[in-house]
Amino acid sequence: MTTHLSMYNDLSMNTDLYQITMAQGYWADDREDDEACFHLFFRSNPFDGGYAIAAGINVFAEYVQEHFGFDRSDIQFLSELEGNDGKPIFEEEFLEYLSDLEFECDVSAVLEGTPVFPHEPLVRVKGPIIQAQLVETPLLNFVNYQTLVATKANRIVRAGDGPVLEFGLRRAQGPDGGLSAARGAYIGGADGTSNVLAGKKLGIPVKGTHAHSWVQSYDTEEEAFESFARSNPNNGVFLVDTYDTIEGVKKAVKVAEELRQDGHEIVGIRLDSGDLAWLSQRAREILDDAGFEDAKIVASNSLDEYTIQSLDRQDDEIDVYGVGTNLVTCQDDPSLGGVYKLAAIREDEWDFRMKLSERKVKRSIPGVLNVRRFQHEGEYKGDMIFHEPGGKPETTEIINPMDAAQSKTCEGRSHTLLSPFFDNGEPVRSFNANLDAIQERRRHRMSFLHEGIKRYQNPHVYPVGVSEELHEERQNLIEEKS
Amino acid sequence: MTTHLSMYNDLSMNTDLYQITMAQGYWADDREDDEACFHLFFRSNPFDGGYAIAAGINVFAEYVQEHFGFDRSDIQFLSELEGNDGKPIFEEEFLEYLSDLEFECDVSAVLEGTPVFPHEPLVRVKGPIIQAQLVETPLLNFVNYQTLVATKANRIVRAGDGPVLEFGLRRAQGPDGGLSAARGAYIGGADGTSNVLAGKKLGIPVKGTHAHSWVQSYDTEEEAFESFARSNPNNGVFLVDTYDTIEGVKKAVKVAEELRQDGHEIVGIRLDSGDLAWLSQRAREILDDAGFEDAKIVASNSLDEYTIQSLDRQDDEIDVYGVGTNLVTCQDDPSLGGVYKLAAIREDEWDFRMKLSERKVKRSIPGVLNVRRFQHEGEYKGDMIFHEPGGKPETTEIINPMDAAQSKTCEGRSHTLLSPFFDNGEPVRSFNANLDAIQERRRHRMSFLHEGIKRYQNPHVYPVGVSEELHEERQNLIEEKS
Repeated sequence: MTTHLSMYNDLSMNTDLYQITMAQGYWADDREDDEACFHLFFRSNPFDGGYAIAAGINVFAEYVQEHFGFDRSDIQFLSELEGNDGKPIFEEEFLEYLSDLEFECDVSAVLEGTPVFPHEPLVRVKGPIIQAQLVETPLLNFVNYQTLVATKANRIVRAGDGPVLEFGLRRAQGPDGGLSAARGAYIGGADGTSNVLAGKKLGIPVKGTHAHSWVQSYDTEEEAFESFARSNPNNGVFLVDTYDTIEGVKKAVKVAEELRQDGHEIVGIRLDSGDLAWLSQRAREILDDAGFEDAKIVASNSLDEYTIQSLDRQDDEIDVYGVGTNLVTCQDDPSLGGVYKLAAIREDEWDFRMKLSERKVKRSIPGVLNVRRFQHEGEYKGDMIFHEPGGKPETTEIINPMDAAQSKTCEGRSHTLLSPFFDNGEPVRSFNANLDAIQERRRHRMSFLHEGIKRYQNPHVYPVGVSEELHEERQNLIEEKS
Repeated sequence: MTTHLSMYNDLSMNTDLYQITMAQGYWADDREDDEACFHLFFRSNPFDGGYAIAAGINVFAEYVQEHFGFDRSDIQFLSELEGNDGKPIFEEEFLEYLSDLEFECDVSAVLEGTPVFPHEPLVRVKGPIIQAQLVETPLLNFVNYQTLVATKANRIVRAGDGPVLEFGLRRAQGPDGGLSAARGAYIGGADGTSNVLAGKKLGIPVKGTHAHSWVQSYDTEEEAFESFARSNPNNGVFLVDTYDTIEGVKKAVKVAEELRQDGHEIVGIRLDSGDLAWLSQRAREILDDAGFEDAKIVASNSLDEYTIQSLDRQDDEIDVYGVGTNLVTCQDDPSLGGVYKLAAIREDEWDFRMKLSERKVKRSIPGVLNVRRFQHEGEYKGDMIFHEPGGKPETTEIINPMDAAQSKTCEGRSHTLLSPFFDNGEPVRSFNANLDAIQERRRHRMSFLHEGIKRYQNPHVYPVGVSEELHEERQNLIEEKS
């Protein structure tokens, strides 16, 4: 048995066992090269909100390019797994097949930073059924969480009127949880992170100065600030609440005056407990009275979009929000229910497949899907899910896939939402996209969403539907299977 | 800029920036070798419960051993960070010092699998203040989440009367989130995981058969089961709810009969939607009537300790529980508030340090702490936090650190909770501990906890207090600082 952290060189096995038992099944049936089409989608918006921000897709693409396939040690491990008769689960010949497997699928996906909605495909994988099935778990593993955290960050960023910094590494699920959180949060609109690895690896601005322990390690608070200012003259944010917050602000001012005499300016102060609205107002007065109008007030401590809104209503004087736990854990809704469903199999023509379920909301949309997003007078008007090989839909009517009685005609011109990422296993775009460009795309595309859709609760529902042609084919399939 | 996944070779920067700015401060003050003592502890039990299960500590230990220190590319990155005057934050000479840094601390910690309680130290790090401070973020990053998920798993396992499998990789925070979840859950009492990497790397039993997509990819459900049985004759768990669950069970029975004629037995069936209590009862009847009394009924779909308890009260016939999202995200309480606080600095003698705060519950316990756990008549009776260099406390009285009016005399013999992990930076035990041994320790130690402490809500509060000597010293410090 190797150690925990050595996993990081060995990601091909980052999957569920059933993906491999199913692969053996397809292989045994000589169906390994049957062409199948799967989609990743989610069924309801996180946080009772009106939208989500797609993220994690480039990471999945990189994963496929760098890690798809099984090496000797993987095959060895799989060969040792036993069934209920004590004999191996996997046949030797199948494992040989598996060890030679290379990725040959077509992948199309929405670009990261795009606002997305329930029921529409975010990622489409089309190709040999074994391969398209095998990537399910890593795809969900990368996209579910980063989309969730990008969405949460975007809600938090919209609540206040200053920059948001992601401070949550210590509450994340290991190093990758921390890095994924920093990445998703930046796409969603955070301005920086405390996570140094995210700075080094992803180019996200990193911020941070000192903790309570710094202050405690000195005999007096003043001494602690003075010492910090000496050693970090151009990066001074003093944490003022170790003993008495208002006294702490006064001491910070005193040290800031000394620093100014040496030609340096403090960056600001940080509040990490107490009544942040009241304390920020008092701190602002003290700072302004002493001539430190440019010193920033950073606040942290269990912030989320609702506490920030509430602070705002109380006329707080906070300039920068540090958000940790509630952002990285997405405390009030800690999972995006993204799923990956088979939607079609090619025999001669594409044959549609769907999961029927007791619950209508769980009925999937069959086909080889893409999405037309309609835009009119600077606003997104609706998304039409359609079967791409069927050509451009004849009308602009969209029908709610969960309630056929609801339909709508979309206005304006439209663009296609899913773009090619892999063609026959070959990457057709660069995945190591600049995060600033993704953040800018998010900003641009979010500006086309009606404000009502961005409300935190009971938002306006953005119209998503299927084309008339697809609606009919789906209805036929439902009748046939029931 | 390198890519996201390359982080896995490069974990030394998995930390918050302020750890490094503080390091520069200590270094500039010539305090880098001042001896300090920090403790990791949490302030309240997760999930409104009465205990937590310590986990993640061996992973932290491995991290320290393998990844502590800064390489050339880390130093290069840090040298490029700028302050508010556009000049570097870090001095060249400090970065040179940093690049030579080796870990020289003493680390003591509770053994993984041990039940632990609010306010007591789980990990103690003692040594040069820069080093003891630098490990804060990775320590919290590894221990917070794994302790949380081990605790959640333990609650879930105790709710039903059958094995629990962890199925949550697709809702975890990236590959490490998945592996950490599988590891923590196994320590807490899960019997296996769907995560193949957790099988390969950590030796956790892996389980899994097929998804809905398998069934959908065939023209009929029966054909799908037959094909799966042919290719996986000794690992057959048929997922029966793709179309109509009861019909699905009947088809599974038919295929199981054919399989039996070939000398193989099915493992069972899986239910993933609908009324799991009612469906499991009907499925049990159908299986039994056909002579498949040994076939297991696996159930999944949004399970947690409360739904499993409720199923149990309805006399379900579920044999195995598959738990995904609610386990890995710890949905109802997705973060453990573990913190890491400075508690003492050595000048000649140990000088106690604590954070005073408006809120009494946030007042830390100063000292160089260890814990005596008292045991009497097969039951843990209370934990005494004491200042270890002060020698064995004179009385067995413990005083509630949050309410001095509450005290208690502990009965029985006691053992010490924190064991040495590193001595002057050298490991003194093997960290790659067998997970089965940790699971067994958890089982053994949990058996000493009174049942009332294990209640899901409003549990009996396990007594944790400070020794009389430590209480007095702490009171003096509070008076002195206020």
